[in-house]
Amino acid sequence: MPLAPADDTFAAALSAQLPEDTLRATEPRYLEEPRGRWAGSSRHLALPRTAQEVAIILRACTESSVGVVPYGGGTGLVGGQIAPAEMTEPLILSLERMNTIREVYAEENVMIAEAGVILADVQNTAADVDRLFPLSLASEGSARIGGLVGTNAGGVNVLRYGNTRDLVLGIEAVLPDGQIWHGLKRLRKDNTGYDLRHLLIGAEGTLGIITAAALKLSPIPAGRGTALMVVKSPQAALKLLSLARSQMGEGISAFEIMSRMGLDFLAEKVPDVRQPFADHPEWLVLIDVGLARGLDPAEALETLFAEGLEAGLVSDGLIAQSEAQADDFWQVRERIPEANRMIGAVSSHDISVPLSAIPGFITKGYEAIGALGEFRVNCFGHVGDGNLHYNVFPMPGRSRADHDNQREDIKRAIHDLCHEMGGSVSAEHGIGRLKVGDLERYGDPAKLSAMRAIKAALDPAGIMNPGAVLRQS
Amino acid sequence: MPLAPADDTFAAALSAQLPEDTLRATEPRYLEEPRGRWAGSSRHLALPRTAQEVAIILRACTESSVGVVPYGGGTGLVGGQIAPAEMTEPLILSLERMNTIREVYAEENVMIAEAGVILADVQNTAADVDRLFPLSLASEGSARIGGLVGTNAGGVNVLRYGNTRDLVLGIEAVLPDGQIWHGLKRLRKDNTGYDLRHLLIGAEGTLGIITAAALKLSPIPAGRGTALMVVKSPQAALKLLSLARSQMGEGISAFEIMSRMGLDFLAEKVPDVRQPFADHPEWLVLIDVGLARGLDPAEALETLFAEGLEAGLVSDGLIAQSEAQADDFWQVRERIPEANRMIGAVSSHDISVPLSAIPGFITKGYEAIGALGEFRVNCFGHVGDGNLHYNVFPMPGRSRADHDNQREDIKRAIHDLCHEMGGSVSAEHGIGRLKVGDLERYGDPAKLSAMRAIKAALDPAGIMNPGAVLRQS
Repeated sequence: MPLAPADDTFAAALSAQLPEDTLRATEPRYLEEPRGRWAGSSRHLALPRTAQEVAIILRACTESSVGVVPYGGGTGLVGGQIAPAEMTEPLILSLERMNTIREVYAEENVMIAEAGVILADVQNTAADVDRLFPLSLASEGSARIGGLVGTNAGGVNVLRYGNTRDLVLGIEAVLPDGQIWHGLKRLRKDNTGYDLRHLLIGAEGTLGIITAAALKLSPIPAGRGTALMVVKSPQAALKLLSLARSQMGEGISAFEIMSRMGLDFLAEKVPDVRQPFADHPEWLVLIDVGLARGLDPAEALETLFAEGLEAGLVSDGLIAQSEAQADDFWQVRERIPEANRMIGAVSSHDISVPLSAIPGFITKGYEAIGALGEFRVNCFGHVGDGNLHYNVFPMPGRSRADHDNQREDIKRAIHDLCHEMGGSVSAEHGIGRLKVGDLERYGDPAKLSAMRAIKAALDPAGIMNPGAVLRQS
Repeated sequence: MPLAPADDTFAAALSAQLPEDTLRATEPRYLEEPRGRWAGSSRHLALPRTAQEVAIILRACTESSVGVVPYGGGTGLVGGQIAPAEMTEPLILSLERMNTIREVYAEENVMIAEAGVILADVQNTAADVDRLFPLSLASEGSARIGGLVGTNAGGVNVLRYGNTRDLVLGIEAVLPDGQIWHGLKRLRKDNTGYDLRHLLIGAEGTLGIITAAALKLSPIPAGRGTALMVVKSPQAALKLLSLARSQMGEGISAFEIMSRMGLDFLAEKVPDVRQPFADHPEWLVLIDVGLARGLDPAEALETLFAEGLEAGLVSDGLIAQSEAQADDFWQVRERIPEANRMIGAVSSHDISVPLSAIPGFITKGYEAIGALGEFRVNCFGHVGDGNLHYNVFPMPGRSRADHDNQREDIKRAIHDLCHEMGGSVSAEHGIGRLKVGDLERYGDPAKLSAMRAIKAALDPAGIMNPGAVLRQS
């Protein structure tokens, strides 16, 4: 069934059911996204303050078959938050006014946060009660809980604490027909029926609107340590991770890989980042550990380095001697995306493969790209999770635009390779509108058919984030 | 639409599509369950060897509207595996022949196991490659992976490692229409579409048949320690857990509570269990830790005890000096259910509440039961997860049968209380056929309506485990 536009008549009728100023004219910032791939189009923006108001909005949209594009912090990288000009004009639904931390249960390690709360505020509120909310990613200063949960965001601490879905005990959500699901349970165990929570988490707003979440906090580890270690190869990095795990168990919070290309890009484009090694190593890992009382993190990292050296895995290393130095190490990792943007990628990939396939993927990836022309590859990321950002850049002197006609071939080559190796073509960014075709190409047919059946069952009018994740039928 | 019986005509037609001996006459053991509440009724049993055979079976059942009751190890406590005499006779589908461990990827911490593999075999195979599969529960010698995953089983290590759903990276499953979902991904991050895995996990076979799972293994912690500590109250137990967490982080594998009643029952009914304290304490916790290299578990437990003593939380304690003594401590906890069975509960409850609500729940639970008559309560379980087995027994000299007419009132009182406190009336056992009414009573209406929509979308003929979780429509 075709959707109707969110036109002035619809907006006026909906507005009459809501408190003054809940609907507004859409401002341009709701129509832009970080990578500048899409320009959105929508005249009406809803800014509800409560789940009840969200319910009124969704009920009206279902009744009138008007599409809704949910908007969190606007930091998504796959266009899930954008209403492209070619779609029937939807209503933008921003959760930014639902920005209350409703409760903190420190002794339970639980916090109830509304969808509009910014991640950094959750992190800080947790720290205030001596707890950790471990979700951490580059956009934490603007990304909001609703979007993070709706897209099952990843980040640097997944290795230890899991993806966003693993940090959510319960959710409150509004279903497309306007029913409010009061699911803010603070339980570690609850086997009463289908896990609707995990179905809505990562559905990218296509099945309902998450209005609040019961978030799982953790104790802050007693001691933190950070090191950079030069490894021989990605294979050596994985062996080092195994060593680290047999030594420190769950104590490893992050295990990130960088390559010489990334360090070169940083040196060229972001020279204020302190380079840890004058001679940029081929492969470098950043290790962050948080250990129990009684263990000295620096000492544990020394031991790991010594064992890695003996096993021929590492050749050089630095252990942070202060928080400031740890931050410097993290700058190296965290500002690579900034350097990447300044160089201008021909194609970026957010892939994951089984851990043991990583070395093979990197080798074969270079071969596949090489077969398509001369490019530079900056491969970096969450190697401990099998998740690499494998980004392809033009050679010096050439630009992204010079390769516009090769982008699809490059993407296809990398995604085909990843798929053949049992991987995922979207490890942490989601499908959004960018990867709908990839999901159709690589997704399991039985899974896709189940997804479509679920979408039709829960959102028969097809109003929820139309065209995201699944093509509009 | 009413279901058709799995009669001889249907069985003969299905049998012709399958290898010889795939269908058999149902043996009595498939029609019994551990607590003896139901006697099943079904003449035909399918014993497929592959997912393809499962697909043929489900397709035929969908076409003929014949119900299927999936059968794993038969250890479920809520009747999900039973075809009661009053239902239209279904086909029993046992996965016991799909009992191959397909692959072990030790370096990735992954194992691929078919649905029919017994849990103990998974644990042992993991141990053979120096890894831990942490799911552990009383029935591990007979429970099978398919049933454990299908019911999202709990157990004693949830505190550290999560529920079964947290130990599953991917699944292979057959949908009711016979499509096979090849979802055995070995990925830590995969944001490509709806999380069908979590939807099927815990759906108790009502949405499809899980035929294999990619299981997450863990490194074996370097050192293990086990202690029993006498605590003043459940409140003190929770404070002790907080202390333990701030000291040892994720190092606490299990944190179980027992009460004097449980110890008395054991002494009376299972006298071969060594009682740790001659004078049975009011409340006792069993703590199991697995710590990283460099930490002495016994020393860490000493420190915890000393801090607990200083804080007025604990009054006595024992730290295991050997594996044998650790096993003795665990016997105390693990054989309580055996003593319970011998005493004969009037009503058993598998509840969870938010952690901070536990002391209040226990106090109010005693009051609520006291208002209904004179009973003994044995409250024990996974207090670190907020999950208590709160079981009500007759006074000495009376029997379970003497209180048959009060059972429903007792159940209602405990479940009402649990629900009012934000809890779950089935923390780890699931809904099965026993708690369908509880789910209807306590379940969120929006969630229930979404569940029914999903069930109708994926299983329109209603063949999958009819009457389990959701009432047959």
